[in-house]
Amino acid sequence: MSRPQPLSGFPELLPRQRIVEQQVVDHLRRAFELHGFANLQTRAVEPMDQLLRKGETSKEVYVLRRLQAEDTEPAGDDALGLHFDLTVPFARYVLENAGKLNFPFRRYQIQPVWRGERPQSGRYREFWQADIDIVDLGELPAHYEVEVALVVADALRGLPLPKLRMHVNNRKLSQGFYQGLGIRDTEEALRIIDKLDKIGHDAVAKLLIDTVDATPEQAEACLKLASISTADTSFVEQIRALGVTDPLLDEGLDELAAVVAAVAAEAPGFVVADMKIARGLDYYTGTVYEVFIEGQEHLGSVCSGGRYDKLASDGKHTYPGVGLSIGVSRLLVPLLQSGALDATREVPTCVLVALANEDERPAANALAQRLRGRGIPTQVSPSAAKFGKQIKFADKRGIPFVLFTNDEGTQIKDIRSGDQTTVDVDAWNPPAEDLHPTIVTAE
Amino acid sequence: MSRPQPLSGFPELLPRQRIVEQQVVDHLRRAFELHGFANLQTRAVEPMDQLLRKGETSKEVYVLRRLQAEDTEPAGDDALGLHFDLTVPFARYVLENAGKLNFPFRRYQIQPVWRGERPQSGRYREFWQADIDIVDLGELPAHYEVEVALVVADALRGLPLPKLRMHVNNRKLSQGFYQGLGIRDTEEALRIIDKLDKIGHDAVAKLLIDTVDATPEQAEACLKLASISTADTSFVEQIRALGVTDPLLDEGLDELAAVVAAVAAEAPGFVVADMKIARGLDYYTGTVYEVFIEGQEHLGSVCSGGRYDKLASDGKHTYPGVGLSIGVSRLLVPLLQSGALDATREVPTCVLVALANEDERPAANALAQRLRGRGIPTQVSPSAAKFGKQIKFADKRGIPFVLFTNDEGTQIKDIRSGDQTTVDVDAWNPPAEDLHPTIVTAE
Repeated sequence: MSRPQPLSGFPELLPRQRIVEQQVVDHLRRAFELHGFANLQTRAVEPMDQLLRKGETSKEVYVLRRLQAEDTEPAGDDALGLHFDLTVPFARYVLENAGKLNFPFRRYQIQPVWRGERPQSGRYREFWQADIDIVDLGELPAHYEVEVALVVADALRGLPLPKLRMHVNNRKLSQGFYQGLGIRDTEEALRIIDKLDKIGHDAVAKLLIDTVDATPEQAEACLKLASISTADTSFVEQIRALGVTDPLLDEGLDELAAVVAAVAAEAPGFVVADMKIARGLDYYTGTVYEVFIEGQEHLGSVCSGGRYDKLASDGKHTYPGVGLSIGVSRLLVPLLQSGALDATREVPTCVLVALANEDERPAANALAQRLRGRGIPTQVSPSAAKFGKQIKFADKRGIPFVLFTNDEGTQIKDIRSGDQTTVDVDAWNPPAEDLHPTIVTAE
Repeated sequence: MSRPQPLSGFPELLPRQRIVEQQVVDHLRRAFELHGFANLQTRAVEPMDQLLRKGETSKEVYVLRRLQAEDTEPAGDDALGLHFDLTVPFARYVLENAGKLNFPFRRYQIQPVWRGERPQSGRYREFWQADIDIVDLGELPAHYEVEVALVVADALRGLPLPKLRMHVNNRKLSQGFYQGLGIRDTEEALRIIDKLDKIGHDAVAKLLIDTVDATPEQAEACLKLASISTADTSFVEQIRALGVTDPLLDEGLDELAAVVAAVAAEAPGFVVADMKIARGLDYYTGTVYEVFIEGQEHLGSVCSGGRYDKLASDGKHTYPGVGLSIGVSRLLVPLLQSGALDATREVPTCVLVALANEDERPAANALAQRLRGRGIPTQVSPSAAKFGKQIKFADKRGIPFVLFTNDEGTQIKDIRSGDQTTVDVDAWNPPAEDLHPTIVTAE
């Protein structure tokens, strides 16, 4: 066959880029597990009726058909489609296994999702997400809205990423405020405010007046609220100063203040209360979160989520939850493609065992196995070529050490410095920073 | 919505089952990386023309269609399908990125694959595989056929699995033998021998006579060869004793002896030379491997692979390779579903921080964070319920330790033994075996 071409929207990584992605994902996983989140993997497919229930993304589903399907097989709503997020499968999993799960149930999930976007629109059609959620049975205490933000702050800390900022709001706060103003359709008002960044102040004011029958003064008050943004809890006073009172507003203010205070204390500079954050999806009912790359807010959020009270319900029971989804591909792929992130080498290998002749291979394998037994990634040279060629093999891949045997015994050569020492294979250790590849950032 | 039902063929795990699977996959990954294999992840989809090129599995493809597709979009061969193995995507990836890869290139890949089997046939339609392959440019030395077997032996060692046995053969050996006998269509002869376990001795003899024009004596000799099976290199003598000579047979005997000798030395009892192993796929050209659960060979192989010389070629260059694929789901799902494998707990959490009242939560969070900072998975109690209820919360999930504060200071309680001690939070460590959940096997 001729040389295949990449498929638009399906990014794939080179080995050294994948090492970076793998280490970032390992870091997230470790953080989630330190906070007691259990891992889940759900199947890639859901019945179409599940996928079509929620929000706008459901329009972008990939539908599956068996190549050898018979006419009698289900189609339409019973057909299968690839999931477009990890929330819908999780809600389905919780309902399906409710009797076997202990609530509150906290899980993380790191999997690809698929969106059947128009080809060549420059958007990903397959990408990885890392989600955490906590769901409870019947009632979900508000402190979990604080906790998931703290977990994400913790998980994103220490990663070689541009400065990230979490913008939070609370739907009770906004909707309570609109209610206190006298606006009836507060959900629609929220959807309109969500367009502020796209269509601007005047168009939003006009929409509020035309669509939810706001007076010009009410519209102005909504926009005033949306303009409030503070890195601490001073937003409470600023909102109080607008003179609107409502019990739902009070609840929202309290809950948002708790999130902002806790995250600001734990991760200084990471959180900002931002009253224009609304989130497009209808199912959020409390705190909503969006994380942006600072100064690149126009690229959209790289992590988002919120509290949802009615996403999973089987009629008898409801399972309210709160969660956040980190857009792993959205965050990493551009940084990898631009070279802003790279790995110190393209292989896990730390030591290459060189060969003087092919007969030595079994002995070299045994030597390599002794290093592996102590956790040192090692491979044996592909051939007993000239020593310089074997060094070049290591150098090309970034393997830092070459091991070989001469009259003086077993030698380890650091091919970067050229330093060579006689070693005891069962005692030698590479410097900690050379044991595994690490991430390097372009300055 | 009502309670969703599982989808036949798409197994999903409960949290404690997933912990087992995760640890097995971590073990495989660690082994592969210790041997210098770099990880790759390829996209889930391939163009249909790629998927339909190879072997019988290609009939079971899931074809994708965008829900909002327009008539002008590609269909047929240009349409996308889900990959049914990890070899076809890997071969495509190598061709696509050949200029950016260093050869010999060794990679591992752990991903789900999909097969559009008939519903309710009791077979998996989504399952995980863990593949390793080594490909080279132009020529691939035979020592890699030894190496991948050693890597898999190493990777499967130390896992809590039933006894596994690797059956190996070499196509050059079989085809050389048939050639030496005077049979012309040696590929077809191999395909017939591959059916031996299914259709038996007499039917195979008849097919050889009818299909490849073998004489009854030739057919008998083929069956004699297929009956040879040894755990060491004594198969060489047994085959020589059959009196057939051929240069290709000699090559095959040498290569197979090298694999068997090396694996038997490194993993005693793991390997057996088995002349009836043929592998259905046409593209194998040298060593072929199949790993069975001992005594349950009828369940089919849980790991298989071989050497392929022409799978990836762009016309100018060919990339011969050798690889093995471990059927992670095939191996684990039955053991998990039967309860033969389980985890010591269903959460990563090692310590639960109990609460005397809700006001303590920020302090409890800070305490938990200090334990996390030292790598101890910790979560805070969902509510300041009665102490007994908080203990029960831990107990239900298998969390071994509860931390709380009383007049005597910070206390750690092992809820299994009831032992309670005053501790310094910044110095206390759980016993190593309690830090993370571990796998337990039913006796």
